[in-house]
Amino acid sequence: MTEPAEWGLSCPLPHTTGDRILLAHGEGAGLTRRLIRQLFLEAFDNDYLRPLADAAVLPPVGERCVVTTDSFVVSPLFFPGGDIGRLAVHGTINDLAVCGAEPLYLCLSVILEEGLPLETLRRVVGSIRDAARSAGILVVAGDTKVVPRGAADQLFLTTTGIGRQLPGCDWGTHRVRPSDRLVLSGAVGDHGIAVLAAREGLGLGTAVSSDTAALHGLVAALVAEGIDIHFLRDATRGGVAAVLHEIAEAAGVSLVLDEAAVPIHEAVRGACEILGIDPLYVANEGKLLAVVAEADASRALAVLRRHPLGAEAALVGEVTAASPPHVLLRGSLGTLRVLDEPTGAPLPRIC
Amino acid sequence: MTEPAEWGLSCPLPHTTGDRILLAHGEGAGLTRRLIRQLFLEAFDNDYLRPLADAAVLPPVGERCVVTTDSFVVSPLFFPGGDIGRLAVHGTINDLAVCGAEPLYLCLSVILEEGLPLETLRRVVGSIRDAARSAGILVVAGDTKVVPRGAADQLFLTTTGIGRQLPGCDWGTHRVRPSDRLVLSGAVGDHGIAVLAAREGLGLGTAVSSDTAALHGLVAALVAEGIDIHFLRDATRGGVAAVLHEIAEAAGVSLVLDEAAVPIHEAVRGACEILGIDPLYVANEGKLLAVVAEADASRALAVLRRHPLGAEAALVGEVTAASPPHVLLRGSLGTLRVLDEPTGAPLPRIC
Repeated sequence: MTEPAEWGLSCPLPHTTGDRILLAHGEGAGLTRRLIRQLFLEAFDNDYLRPLADAAVLPPVGERCVVTTDSFVVSPLFFPGGDIGRLAVHGTINDLAVCGAEPLYLCLSVILEEGLPLETLRRVVGSIRDAARSAGILVVAGDTKVVPRGAADQLFLTTTGIGRQLPGCDWGTHRVRPSDRLVLSGAVGDHGIAVLAAREGLGLGTAVSSDTAALHGLVAALVAEGIDIHFLRDATRGGVAAVLHEIAEAAGVSLVLDEAAVPIHEAVRGACEILGIDPLYVANEGKLLAVVAEADASRALAVLRRHPLGAEAALVGEVTAASPPHVLLRGSLGTLRVLDEPTGAPLPRIC
Repeated sequence: MTEPAEWGLSCPLPHTTGDRILLAHGEGAGLTRRLIRQLFLEAFDNDYLRPLADAAVLPPVGERCVVTTDSFVVSPLFFPGGDIGRLAVHGTINDLAVCGAEPLYLCLSVILEEGLPLETLRRVVGSIRDAARSAGILVVAGDTKVVPRGAADQLFLTTTGIGRQLPGCDWGTHRVRPSDRLVLSGAVGDHGIAVLAAREGLGLGTAVSSDTAALHGLVAALVAEGIDIHFLRDATRGGVAAVLHEIAEAAGVSLVLDEAAVPIHEAVRGACEILGIDPLYVANEGKLLAVVAEADASRALAVLRRHPLGAEAALVGEVTAASPPHVLLRGSLGTLRVLDEPTGAPLPRIC
């Protein structure tokens, strides 16, 4: 930064913008290059990124290259258990993971609002660096744009992940069939409630933390044990309910979820009750729902529970042939009721 | 859309939001799925996108996979000669092209402001479809986020491109050396001035149109003719000046640009004079600057001029060993002056 630090209080000159993002940081010239070298390259340095060319040249990815992209607009940027940077890395890795891919490379595009404190950007970049390192994924390409004050809310990220699909990972809704079992890797609702509480000042303190986590290890464990996976998805926006509806619609089957079997942390349950929200509709960022062959269900559960990210895994339901396709909730007395498709849950900007 | 169209003027009920983007379009549930199926899949349909899984599974890309990412925040969204959609596709293809890569796949992430007319989104998606089709690149993965009114300005795009590097394309600043020639593929400044004029209502009408174009054909022509390319870049943000400074800094050489040789359209020159802007600092979206071996310079020029996108190509300067590294402008009388590095040109949101 050539910009002077903020002036002392006794200085008669007007305050400068200090250590903040300027429009010039996004104009492709000197300040952009310095920002890229001193912040992004410093954090992510590797052989593919270092040339800072228009594009990165990568070695062959393998027989089946898997690619995914996601924008992140979460508000606030920082919340108990994570921040937008961790979320972006984990979210992208998880989209690769549920397709059976080992995460390899990440592209990172940043849209910044003029005036954003550089320190905020530094914290987010640090989070991205740490999350990427611990998952073994390399940031190989990036872009930075700056928009004038008021044209964006602080900072948006878009991450694109590239991975290599593990052999034998050909699951999908086409393989879902009646008698399959539903296995959930842990408690639901933590992420959405943590973000909502931080945003609305609900005063939950640290009682609820985001579950943001990279799930590729969990998937690799299932694959390594030869579990007959028919479908796999991380239950993000729209929660578990959205995933179940997606399966029902695409596979033309019905799904029965055992209400009492779904793990929900007490603090999340309490917050949901106060807010009038069903935790089944609340976003998670570190939970996957697996549809597995009936014969492999208990083994799948055991594999998940052995992993630190699956300690609270549970068998939560099954696939049936009931027609038309429905998502049903089985209550404690065995009664079935329809779990409606989420259409407009009032939880914007949770990822 | 289940939303009713706007009510007639005589209706006593309050106006509805009509055919506009709602927060629920970004929540991962029913409305998101309908938007994706009815708009995005309809426009981009192909075997890789169609499963609408978390990630797309692609066939092997080849020996050297090239990847690039860019966000687009241009304002206004539509301008003479193009719009944000065309720009995103072309910009991403060009980043692949200047690395010698044949463009193959595109990922598209969209951040929408609540209240955006669906028709605006439809037009942009149509542009993306047309630009992608004519360049032969497939949209294989995507994401949609919606932020509340005021948290973004209408619509931002992030595109990630994946390509296959052509054999023998190992140029870069490490290959730039004294006596190399600078070849520019056409007139400069059109894009930046077209956007600025549209935004500020400068009344240039259609006198200046954006030069947005996909340059992979131009690069392929140079490669096919065996031109000894030492460096290649599209002159986007910061204009030709930014590219020259980047080369000088990275290669440790000086560059001399012949002021009179740089093609500039009359209307652009006039607008720049009125605005007090140097066209060398203005963004282009369909021009490349090639550094080629001296012996190949006139052949490179001929190859470019044979291509519709290179009809106005020109030899514009050369590389020298002058130290310290400088970018110099040679005036009509042969006098040399320093072309300063752009640091904060007042042209935000031109891409």
